[in-house]
Amino acid sequence: MKICILPGDGIGPEITAEAVRVIEALDLKFEMEEALLGGAAVDATGDPYPEATRKLAREADAVLLGAVGGPKWDTLPREQRPERGLLGIRKDLGLFANLRPAILYPELANASSLKPEVVAGLDILIVRELTGDIYFGQPRGLEIRDGERFGFNTMHYTESEIRRIGRVAFEAARKRNKRLCSVDKMNVLETTQLWRDVMIELAAEYPDVELSHMLVDNAAMQLVRAPKQFDVMVTGNMFGDILSDEASMLTGSIGMLPSASLDANNKGLYEPSHGSAPDIAGQGIANPLATILSVAMMLRYTFNQENAALRIENAVKKVLAQGLRTGDIFEPGTTKVGTKQMGDAVLAAL
Amino acid sequence: MKICILPGDGIGPEITAEAVRVIEALDLKFEMEEALLGGAAVDATGDPYPEATRKLAREADAVLLGAVGGPKWDTLPREQRPERGLLGIRKDLGLFANLRPAILYPELANASSLKPEVVAGLDILIVRELTGDIYFGQPRGLEIRDGERFGFNTMHYTESEIRRIGRVAFEAARKRNKRLCSVDKMNVLETTQLWRDVMIELAAEYPDVELSHMLVDNAAMQLVRAPKQFDVMVTGNMFGDILSDEASMLTGSIGMLPSASLDANNKGLYEPSHGSAPDIAGQGIANPLATILSVAMMLRYTFNQENAALRIENAVKKVLAQGLRTGDIFEPGTTKVGTKQMGDAVLAAL
Ligand SMILES: CC(C)[C@H](C(=O)O)[C@@H](O)C(=O)O
Ligand SMILES: CC(C)[C@H](C(=O)O)[C@@H](O)C(=O)O
Repeated sequence: MKICILPGDGIGPEITAEAVRVIEALDLKFEMEEALLGGAAVDATGDPYPEATRKLAREADAVLLGAVGGPKWDTLPREQRPERGLLGIRKDLGLFANLRPAILYPELANASSLKPEVVAGLDILIVRELTGDIYFGQPRGLEIRDGERFGFNTMHYTESEIRRIGRVAFEAARKRNKRLCSVDKMNVLETTQLWRDVMIELAAEYPDVELSHMLVDNAAMQLVRAPKQFDVMVTGNMFGDILSDEASMLTGSIGMLPSASLDANNKGLYEPSHGSAPDIAGQGIANPLATILSVAMMLRYTFNQENAALRIENAVKKVLAQGLRTGDIFEPGTTKVGTKQMGDAVLAAL
Repeated sequence: MKICILPGDGIGPEITAEAVRVIEALDLKFEMEEALLGGAAVDATGDPYPEATRKLAREADAVLLGAVGGPKWDTLPREQRPERGLLGIRKDLGLFANLRPAILYPELANASSLKPEVVAGLDILIVRELTGDIYFGQPRGLEIRDGERFGFNTMHYTESEIRRIGRVAFEAARKRNKRLCSVDKMNVLETTQLWRDVMIELAAEYPDVELSHMLVDNAAMQLVRAPKQFDVMVTGNMFGDILSDEASMLTGSIGMLPSASLDANNKGLYEPSHGSAPDIAGQGIANPLATILSVAMMLRYTFNQENAALRIENAVKKVLAQGLRTGDIFEPGTTKVGTKQMGDAVLAAL
């Protein structure tokens, strides 16, 4: 059982280090090997997804990623930017199913910008298609037409791409509260008309799951108005990018939220939902819990070790109950700790 | 000075009737003529934007629209759906600049699902490009490729389209707090890389306005986390659809929010930000204030009658202060009124 560790940029190395300690503590005989992705890889090799990383990631059963990106690389040509590394590895490994839970921990309820009664107990799972849509669609580019600059991109989906992600979402709903909301813009975009059609067809195979549909603009509203109406949401790559970030922020503690990106055989890349936070990088104050919780998702989805996953999740709940907080989730009356101390506490709670 | 009135569907006719009474009360010698748009037009003519409506709308100086759409027409072929009428009139009249304020009225602060300190005093203006982007991009369609269904759409912008909406946004920021945030997804989409480039170029002409940039996923988060950081936001048609609805819902009282869609000569279509609410249509309980406030925007932008606009806005503030509320904004301790009573109160306050 081989895990490829990609610390990435910014706070990535610090938070990944704590997650690696957690993996080691499990005593499950994982082999781990590190490689470069994103800005760190650009600096070392000129390529945000270098060949050596590709090789290691392909061989591994799972990938643990810190985060990529930072202002340092923002002015590089498009092909060398850190996020190309992320898009590259997603596509290369066929990680089409992105699972992003938005969970509000009772101890952190105050952190939300929403009223407690609106978000208390929030537990949504967003299933985002991750290797198709306008992210990867051809043709695309920036050129001169009729004497002026013209930018263009192509959104597209095939019915099999939609069916594949649809099944992941229906299966996930089946294991939860059996409600699935599919988000599209069928009143304007033909691509998402097909999306809706295929979801309706799939529903026949999942009579125990209640399927509903929502337009993306309405979904963006309903997440703010009454987020607890949702159980599982499924949508395309572009809308999923926007809605999953919106949903994460409803909790006010994005430093707590893990994510999984799976291929057709449950091989996966696991990473925190938050970014590389270059402003606090290297200070030892970043919150490692989302990365540690990403390890729990890895154990659950790739390695089928539900018990070990729960052990980690319970350890995280315990340190929260003990009142330990990194700066991002600190509030008066709790104990502020750094990245390493938080890792120590999780290890102790394991 | 000619106004084309398009009551539309659902609650559209009821709320438009109150707005028409307000226009009449101003005694500004407007000529008004009514026509059909959306589902009502489909029922009468088979076309959601019939020729007679097109003629009237083109001749008029401004258009006042109620709302279009409803489940009744959801199963019709794409070309006959009510929203085709809306997209049709926008494109036909060249209404490229959609202005959507998200304002929280102090009297309605409780209605928001966000904490009072997060939204108190909220006053954002979203400027959305309305006649380009993936909404109108060709090629598009749904066809069979390699033996399966394939849906595709095209996002595109030319630099002149971006410059045109950019100017509207910079001008608007200039009249407000001089801060403009341009939203794109430049790290993935070439179209929006061009968007960002052109905004940066334009900034040189508006040294008094502070321009910032935000990726759309982050913007969706920041609107939830700390919406008061924004003054004016500008973005493309698709992102604008999502973000402007999200921003409206931050106020919790979308029944209060007007909108304007302007062409290059300040001819405009004015409509409430909310939809046609088929569930309460015909009951005389819908909130007419967003439509009445849309008349204020019409007076300001198309007819250059700032005083009359303020008169209406102050009248609306007065009825709120009097404690009058339609069902959507009702809370204990206030007085629940119907559509017509609310219209009466605004007329009295004028
Ligand atoms: C960095 C960027 C390319 C990426 C995306 O848009 O997919 C990020 O926002 C995410 O959601 O993982
Ligand atoms: C009805 C629909 C086509 C329309 C849009 O997407 O533009 C609506 O959502 C809006 O924002 O006015």
